[in-house]
Amino acid sequence: MEKIDHIGIAVKSLEQGNLFYKKLLGKAHYKIEAVENEGVNTSFFKVGESKVELLEDTTGESAIAKFLKKNGEGLHHIAYAVDDIKGEINRLKEEGFTLIDEEPRRGADNKWVAFVHPKSAGGILIELCQDVLTPDMPERD
Amino acid sequence: MEKIDHIGIAVKSLEQGNLFYKKLLGKAHYKIEAVENEGVNTSFFKVGESKVELLEDTTGESAIAKFLKKNGEGLHHIAYAVDDIKGEINRLKEEGFTLIDEEPRRGADNKWVAFVHPKSAGGILIELCQDVLTPDMPERD
Repeated sequence: MEKIDHIGIAVKSLEQGNLFYKKLLGKAHYKIEAVENEGVNTSFFKVGESKVELLEDTTGESAIAKFLKKNGEGLHHIAYAVDDIKGEINRLKEEGFTLIDEEPRRGADNKWVAFVHPKSAGGILIELCQDVLTPDMPERD
Repeated sequence: MEKIDHIGIAVKSLEQGNLFYKKLLGKAHYKIEAVENEGVNTSFFKVGESKVELLEDTTGESAIAKFLKKNGEGLHHIAYAVDDIKGEINRLKEEGFTLIDEEPRRGADNKWVAFVHPKSAGGILIELCQDVLTPDMPERD
């Protein structure tokens, strides 16, 4: 894991969340992005080399909708940046972790992403992410 | 907020947690520190400019013991590094946040720290932290 790429926070309203996190972090979000295949809208705040990502449900059936119903607003996932997402998926599987995604898929913020199940990861939903350099799936070195 | 200084994760056993997070992060912890006034033992892993801090209860009555009883293992707090902790405390109070610590106090990892109540901070316990440069309380510029 190279760095904390971002922490993902579930909010009921992106508009309210953006105002609230501007007060907390002392700076405004720098972009908003819809992730239609996930049923969420997202916004991003820069904090050093990492980001805070707010996530709002748009369909009533997204993972964020389910999370909010169960937990209320709060931390949804921690995303670590990796250089070789396929290699990290294989390494974690060999270490006994349960991968939600055994193959990388496209996520927000122009990334390949894969999630590790919180039940196998100390109670925290973990995202692995790698910058998309080409539109094809990254090959292992 | 200058960067994510660390994410604090409550674990039942630091020994087991250290083994587990070594597998997850692909690297071992670099230090262990007891924080006697908090009733916890901590370990730290470096991830880019940030750290992962594991926290284990040592007294049965610490904030970590209460957290584990209520939530099980998982994310306990997110710590943001600040350059002027007294200024940030005052700024956040003026913005309407509820501070658990209205004055900085000494925390782990040679820091001045102050916590923001999760009920006023979107469901997440927030720590502000600043490196201790002198043993006295930092003065505002």
